[in-house]
Amino acid sequence: MFVRNCWYVIAWDHEVPPDALFTRTVLGEAILLFRTEGGEITALRDRCCHRLAPLSKGRKEGDCVRCGYHGLLFDATGRCIEIPGSETVPAKARVQRYPVTVKNKWVFVWMGDPAKADLALLPDNFSCDDPGWDYLPGYLHYSTPQQLICDNLLDFSHLSYVHEKTLGGTTAIAQARAEIENVPRGIRVTRKVHDVPPPPYYKAVRQLPGNLDRWFIYDFLLPGTLLMHSGGRPVEDAEGDMSRAVRLHSCQTVTPETATTTHYFFQQGRRVEEGDHSIAEALYKSLLVAFEEDRAMITAQSQAIDADPEAPMMLLAMDAAVVRFRKLVAEAIAAENGEPAAPAQPAVREERAARSIA
Amino acid sequence: MFVRNCWYVIAWDHEVPPDALFTRTVLGEAILLFRTEGGEITALRDRCCHRLAPLSKGRKEGDCVRCGYHGLLFDATGRCIEIPGSETVPAKARVQRYPVTVKNKWVFVWMGDPAKADLALLPDNFSCDDPGWDYLPGYLHYSTPQQLICDNLLDFSHLSYVHEKTLGGTTAIAQARAEIENVPRGIRVTRKVHDVPPPPYYKAVRQLPGNLDRWFIYDFLLPGTLLMHSGGRPVEDAEGDMSRAVRLHSCQTVTPETATTTHYFFQQGRRVEEGDHSIAEALYKSLLVAFEEDRAMITAQSQAIDADPEAPMMLLAMDAAVVRFRKLVAEAIAAENGEPAAPAQPAVREERAARSIA
Amino acid sequence: MFVRNCWYVIAWDHEVPPDALFTRTVLGEAILLFRTEGGEITALRDRCCHRLAPLSKGRKEGDCVRCGYHGLLFDATGRCIEIPGSETVPAKARVQRYPVTVKNKWVFVWMGDPAKADLALLPDNFSCDDPGWDYLPGYLHYSTPQQLICDNLLDFSHLSYVHEKTLGGTTAIAQARAEIENVPRGIRVTRKVHDVPPPPYYKAVRQLPGNLDRWFIYDFLLPGTLLMHSGGRPVEDAEGDMSRAVRLHSCQTVTPETATTTHYFFQQGRRVEEGDHSIAEALYKSLLVAFEEDRAMITAQSQAIDADPEAPMMLLAMDAAVVRFRKLVAEAIAAENGEPAAPAQPAVREERAARSIA
Repeated sequence: MFVRNCWYVIAWDHEVPPDALFTRTVLGEAILLFRTEGGEITALRDRCCHRLAPLSKGRKEGDCVRCGYHGLLFDATGRCIEIPGSETVPAKARVQRYPVTVKNKWVFVWMGDPAKADLALLPDNFSCDDPGWDYLPGYLHYSTPQQLICDNLLDFSHLSYVHEKTLGGTTAIAQARAEIENVPRGIRVTRKVHDVPPPPYYKAVRQLPGNLDRWFIYDFLLPGTLLMHSGGRPVEDAEGDMSRAVRLHSCQTVTPETATTTHYFFQQGRRVEEGDHSIAEALYKSLLVAFEEDRAMITAQSQAIDADPEAPMMLLAMDAAVVRFRKLVAEAIAAENGEPAAPAQPAVREERAARSIA
Repeated sequence: MFVRNCWYVIAWDHEVPPDALFTRTVLGEAILLFRTEGGEITALRDRCCHRLAPLSKGRKEGDCVRCGYHGLLFDATGRCIEIPGSETVPAKARVQRYPVTVKNKWVFVWMGDPAKADLALLPDNFSCDDPGWDYLPGYLHYSTPQQLICDNLLDFSHLSYVHEKTLGGTTAIAQARAEIENVPRGIRVTRKVHDVPPPPYYKAVRQLPGNLDRWFIYDFLLPGTLLMHSGGRPVEDAEGDMSRAVRLHSCQTVTPETATTTHYFFQQGRRVEEGDHSIAEALYKSLLVAFEEDRAMITAQSQAIDADPEAPMMLLAMDAAVVRFRKLVAEAIAAENGEPAAPAQPAVREERAARSIA
Repeated sequence: MFVRNCWYVIAWDHEVPPDALFTRTVLGEAILLFRTEGGEITALRDRCCHRLAPLSKGRKEGDCVRCGYHGLLFDATGRCIEIPGSETVPAKARVQRYPVTVKNKWVFVWMGDPAKADLALLPDNFSCDDPGWDYLPGYLHYSTPQQLICDNLLDFSHLSYVHEKTLGGTTAIAQARAEIENVPRGIRVTRKVHDVPPPPYYKAVRQLPGNLDRWFIYDFLLPGTLLMHSGGRPVEDAEGDMSRAVRLHSCQTVTPETATTTHYFFQQGRRVEEGDHSIAEALYKSLLVAFEEDRAMITAQSQAIDADPEAPMMLLAMDAAVVRFRKLVAEAIAAENGEPAAPAQPAVREERAARSIA
């Protein structure tokens, strides 16, 4: 159902405290994060091998974690090194350890075969940790499957309607044709909009004199990460003149918590030379309003699907990126399972739809 | 499971606003209601054909509704007439339209084959819109199957126990034998009770001198509508003298929201010549108390059934109307499915019970 | 899934009012308790045989209960003796009656074959009603299966970790080896701990001069009852000198409400000669804190199991009593079903685990 051999964001770096336990569920597996004395993060299955109590209900002891139920002690590799009342510890007494790494403030766990964990597959979320970019980190919890949020992010025509009063401000975004290209493990979507009023949320960033040319250029990568340059520039300004432009870089990623719930990590950074930090704060507030608009719509959509799971969707031209990305996911899952790369995994209704526009 | 070829009440007329969207679910299908510029109500499936978002999260534009997710525009027949970014609209881009009509303040939708929608099948809920009758409109939501509420309304012996302090006031109601006759698409139940104290809720209507003769005469019709004349008259008054009587007409109907939840629309009207509108208000308040008594009992019953769905019920003489109406429902469902009219549909435990008293 | 031929505690005696109805669910069956005029408790299925409404929504009439829906009247044996509107009552109109008895303030119901109800199988919960012992009665509701609470009570090594700051106070409890013996319908667990600091909750009972020798000696009996002598005595005191000891007797029992929820009845009594009643109150308060520690841990464990029901547990030496008692339960269930006494019933993961240490 999900691609496993890839890095999923499990937390912002600052969420994992220096000297306490942190737990979050990814792909249905509760995962314990804690830092060793050196500050490095360890990721273990948050479940004692003895009677399955969550280790996060226990306590950190140096580089180890002790179960709070019967006191088993596990080191940072997941090996049990003490069983109260026992002189020996069976070799098989251990909890699963996950490959984990931190890149640009995002903490990633590898949910598949540890031998295949490959740092080269990490996304380039550079603006999360770059002196040229300024932002506030965001997190939302969704009570919907991850796929519906990916669909949302893959088709920006919704900006004109869901975000009419925030990120959009014009129907021209929906009118514009997006260009789609293949990139490694994902697709690139380019959408340009000419001579439109500034979107309401730009007011947080800059007073702009008149209409803008706007652009959205993003990669959307397995398992569900959006990396986007976007911005707007007064139409009257000379080509290449960025002196009055708004330039943003956004990193967003959706991690399945379970089959039906999702973590959403996001930031939208602004260029530091365009003003002080209060702008980042204002931008963050506007973004939260907009992302609540998405969450309300996607939650309503998800409930409609739950009420009638076999209802077919009708694919339209605007869904080209949605279809292409779902195909990528299906192929990745098939490849992991040693199946032929034929499309197969998505829900039946999607399948039927996908064939009808293929 | 439900009869489909019939009119279900989906709303009171006043619930559908003049210039906004209204949604309610019937038989598990979310249905969007809105008024055209002329004030006529349209009923569409509340689900965009594109990605299944509820249209009620969008907005009304004249006689059309625009999806709030990606902006598809549908006319009042359910046909999509605009897809942002597309020059053409596929013919199959449409949402289901339901036959809808308003009669005496009730808004009805036809949930079956539209070709069979027949206005002659509407119930005669005349007192909902008659200058001789005065009432306040009521609505309750039940977290129980519709059938259990029909059962309740089909056997008024419960008035003596559930409504001892409101609608009942005497065990004589349960002692009285109800007469049952067939009427088109339903049954008629007649129950008369002689020389009993006025029920507590009559105090809202009239000060009465002593004991009454009471009557309850109602039709109970597919799919679940009660139309009732009821009243009471001092025993000492001459036959036919209504000068000191209480006369009420009630229209009540239960519409399945889902298999396990139900809408309950009701009113109990009084004769306008028996006093001013404050009496209707007092009557409505008393009725609400009584209907909460029903809801508490039926909800407890429903939970007991859920805890042990195979538990058999024991049919008694008082269940004659219940059994007859359940048989009507089963026959109507069988006829819709082209099956022989043999009893079949109700739950197994009912079946067994029904046979045991047949 | 559960042993049926045994007595389950359904209530504390004081919970059943002298002149009103009381309901509680055991093994998924709602049971009505009420007292006859003589004060004796009757236990009936809390479900009218007519339309399954809970009788507890009705009312007590002398030694009978009247259904609040349609007025059927049942005597204390569960026989229907009146049906409003009917002159006769069918012989099969009755609700199930359960054998019930009160012993030392606990109300027990027999959930199996009534012919096999045997008072000799009642546990000896003497301290619940003995002038030498003083306590406050406790009740907690668990949203977890009963088995997990039994497991908890069968392995006191958790006192060192779950109850570090309440009942435990030292890791020596977990280090100590428990002795396990067979007793009729259960096992006896003996755990002694030498020269340890007084546990924090003893402060409610006595000021103690220094380290203690502590003991825990309990029987754990089908279906889930713990009867325990425990205490502590200054290490410096002469053997047999109880003048500065803390001596407690505890009766605790867990009754499945449903397959996934549980009632927990408990008391921990102190010797009356060791101080006044305020001590019992202080002890009760401390105990509640400790039992909330258990409930938090067991609930977290239960949720982890629900998230992955096939996850195996790893049995350790400390689980000897857990395994032995689960075997007893499995054998009792098999015997009731006329199956061979081979282990069989517990969840697969337990089975595998049990074999691995057999």
